[in-house]
Amino acid sequence: MAKDFTPVSTLAIVGVGLLGGSVALASRRRELAQRIIAVGRPEGSQHAAAGAGIVDEASNDLAATVSRADIVVLCTPVERIITDLPVVMEAVREGTLVTDVGSTKATIVSAADVLASRGFFVGSHPMAGSEKNGWSHATANLFEGAPAIVTPSEQTNPDAAARCAAFWRALGARPQFLGPTRHDELVALVSHAPHFVAVALAESLRRSGEDPELLARLSGPGLRDTTRVAMGSPEMWLPIARHNARALADALDATSNVLEELSRLLREEKHDQFAEVVESARSLRQRLQREG
Amino acid sequence: MAKDFTPVSTLAIVGVGLLGGSVALASRRRELAQRIIAVGRPEGSQHAAAGAGIVDEASNDLAATVSRADIVVLCTPVERIITDLPVVMEAVREGTLVTDVGSTKATIVSAADVLASRGFFVGSHPMAGSEKNGWSHATANLFEGAPAIVTPSEQTNPDAAARCAAFWRALGARPQFLGPTRHDELVALVSHAPHFVAVALAESLRRSGEDPELLARLSGPGLRDTTRVAMGSPEMWLPIARHNARALADALDATSNVLEELSRLLREEKHDQFAEVVESARSLRQRLQREG
Repeated sequence: MAKDFTPVSTLAIVGVGLLGGSVALASRRRELAQRIIAVGRPEGSQHAAAGAGIVDEASNDLAATVSRADIVVLCTPVERIITDLPVVMEAVREGTLVTDVGSTKATIVSAADVLASRGFFVGSHPMAGSEKNGWSHATANLFEGAPAIVTPSEQTNPDAAARCAAFWRALGARPQFLGPTRHDELVALVSHAPHFVAVALAESLRRSGEDPELLARLSGPGLRDTTRVAMGSPEMWLPIARHNARALADALDATSNVLEELSRLLREEKHDQFAEVVESARSLRQRLQREG
Repeated sequence: MAKDFTPVSTLAIVGVGLLGGSVALASRRRELAQRIIAVGRPEGSQHAAAGAGIVDEASNDLAATVSRADIVVLCTPVERIITDLPVVMEAVREGTLVTDVGSTKATIVSAADVLASRGFFVGSHPMAGSEKNGWSHATANLFEGAPAIVTPSEQTNPDAAARCAAFWRALGARPQFLGPTRHDELVALVSHAPHFVAVALAESLRRSGEDPELLARLSGPGLRDTTRVAMGSPEMWLPIARHNARALADALDATSNVLEELSRLLREEKHDQFAEVVESARSLRQRLQREG
């Protein structure tokens, strides 16, 4: 992982949203590629992103674009990555590194593992983002200090995995290796469950039947922060839920169980036991603050 | 509520933490009182706050201090407010306005309603704060734009309630009236439940048995925001839970029910119904953003 990244001639970004746009801006600022090409569907955002100078060139032709690239980063939602993988791995040149930013890894890496290619696929997941979507919110420093999980499987070329980690470090992130399935389990806990817990909290407010305008007038920073991620794009989050369904369902059940316990302790006036749960949760959260 | 606030000679603040300190700083900046006195237990923070110039004077004598005040603001945790109320209401001069910043209102207002006094008690709850505690985090603009709920009961003097609302507006907040019980129901939804849902999420991470150091290395802004409030002071939050136990337990059950539903829909691969919940939660959350 200590390897340095050698700048390349051509970087291809498939899907220019918040993450793809930020990969482009960070690569340019850090001079990682001489030329950055964005590719997407004909009606995609790559044309506007090129017009705004986020990338050097826009294309609708996936195979032709990736065949010119030294590095390809797949930045579309999870299911689109899986659909595009056979085309990309077939089209790339000898030695091209293909990676992605998908938030689930087991299904993506398995899909890549069965494809014959002259290039090398390495799954990755930068833990950065926002409830905001689209390249217009992209920033060159989005990945600075963010964890970037690189998920080699047994089929992954070790040199390509090391190069992928070096690429993320060059973008400002803190790369670390995890197996794809282990990634999905852990990310269910630290990312997917928090998202859908925020969804459940917002939905429970809606189901209360109270006037949303009144709730809005009364809401302070606590509610806003706790539910902010629930504004994230369903286009991105629904495929994540489908592709990590079991680990996510387990994590949601775990939170639901603690909520039921807190509710029961309140109703039974078991204040000391209620306080113990609150204290142990607080100390875990403080450790996340200190060690993150 | 349109009444203007007339500056007073002496403002007494009981308990100088984040909120009490911010009432002091905002009152001084906005020239609402000529003299600000902080009172607390002998070992309390009022001496340090006076030393730092947050207030003009520090005292350990609750009755003597409030007897000199035109306005008294009780800024201790809920149970301490209830303990101090008889002393305060007995000691105040004719016409003194006594209010508080407690996050639950029914038990506090009921406790005040049975006390004979020459002053007037009006419950209030500014919806501002932070997971940070203590006067050293106090700011003069903490209440700017924040909802300040004023909770008159049938026993509350209407002129005093109007004056209390004018005080909060003068501090920069947006006052609004709600009955104490209605306040507690609504605040269970928009403030207390979000707090304890964050606690439950953090506690479920702890119970996963995963190494906290690993979780910390993997965690991004989503987890941090969603669980930030779980770092709030147990000294403040445990009494809130006890004093709003039923409404809070109902709200926690409501969130737990949505979590169970999401988990079941995931396991049964009912993707369309899962998507419907995500979409309706998102639209509620977006309304909070627009209208808040």
